[in-house]
Amino acid sequence: MIGRLNHVAIVVGDLEAEATRYRDVLGAAVSEPHALPDHGVRLVFVDLPNTRVELLTPFDKTSPIHAFLAKGGGLHHVCYEVEDIEASRDRLLASGLRVLGDGDPRIGAHGKPVLFLHPKDFAGTLIELQQA
Amino acid sequence: MIGRLNHVAIVVGDLEAEATRYRDVLGAAVSEPHALPDHGVRLVFVDLPNTRVELLTPFDKTSPIHAFLAKGGGLHHVCYEVEDIEASRDRLLASGLRVLGDGDPRIGAHGKPVLFLHPKDFAGTLIELQQA
Repeated sequence: MIGRLNHVAIVVGDLEAEATRYRDVLGAAVSEPHALPDHGVRLVFVDLPNTRVELLTPFDKTSPIHAFLAKGGGLHHVCYEVEDIEASRDRLLASGLRVLGDGDPRIGAHGKPVLFLHPKDFAGTLIELQQA
Repeated sequence: MIGRLNHVAIVVGDLEAEATRYRDVLGAAVSEPHALPDHGVRLVFVDLPNTRVELLTPFDKTSPIHAFLAKGGGLHHVCYEVEDIEASRDRLLASGLRVLGDGDPRIGAHGKPVLFLHPKDFAGTLIELQQA
């Protein structure tokens, strides 16, 4: 069911400082910051040869990652691609696993349908599924 | 400097249960468990088309990931490949960043030289560098 690792998301407090560190010290290809107010984040993309790292910071205090940053931030979630998000959801639910929210995929930060799986079902790891 | 994302490491309590969940529910290609007593872990490899996820559990209570699991486990580190581990270390040190341990690369779980960077220098994220 799961395919490529689409991205790893890391929550940081100072987006510009972290972007500079990835660009200048780690020598990575880092995008300019993007604001996604509807998702409550500002982010940069770190393009690696085989996948992407996303550095996220809260857009404001209503951000879904605000509490995570307040606890220290760091590695936040992994996103796996799936061919068919609704079939994937049905398979997960049939296995007794939980998806966050009302179970309907919503349009994620990349303009594609996404779902988040309950971290308690995966040993504390937040997993995003994104339609490929 | 950094190249491919070599792997994402996730610390779990019940390795067999998590491996089964990744195999049977997420439909991923999961290896049999490997014990690496010298590194203090048992692990399985989840092979995705573009990278790998490693599910790790402590080998025993002296494991370097024992305390992390006691705090809940979950996403533990990301590993980026570099062409020349010693040149990478020198560049990091020249930029005022810290590497863990004595600064000499040691042989990692994949038989290649690795270094870990100080999480406080990367907003709480533990980064492993592995010679490609």
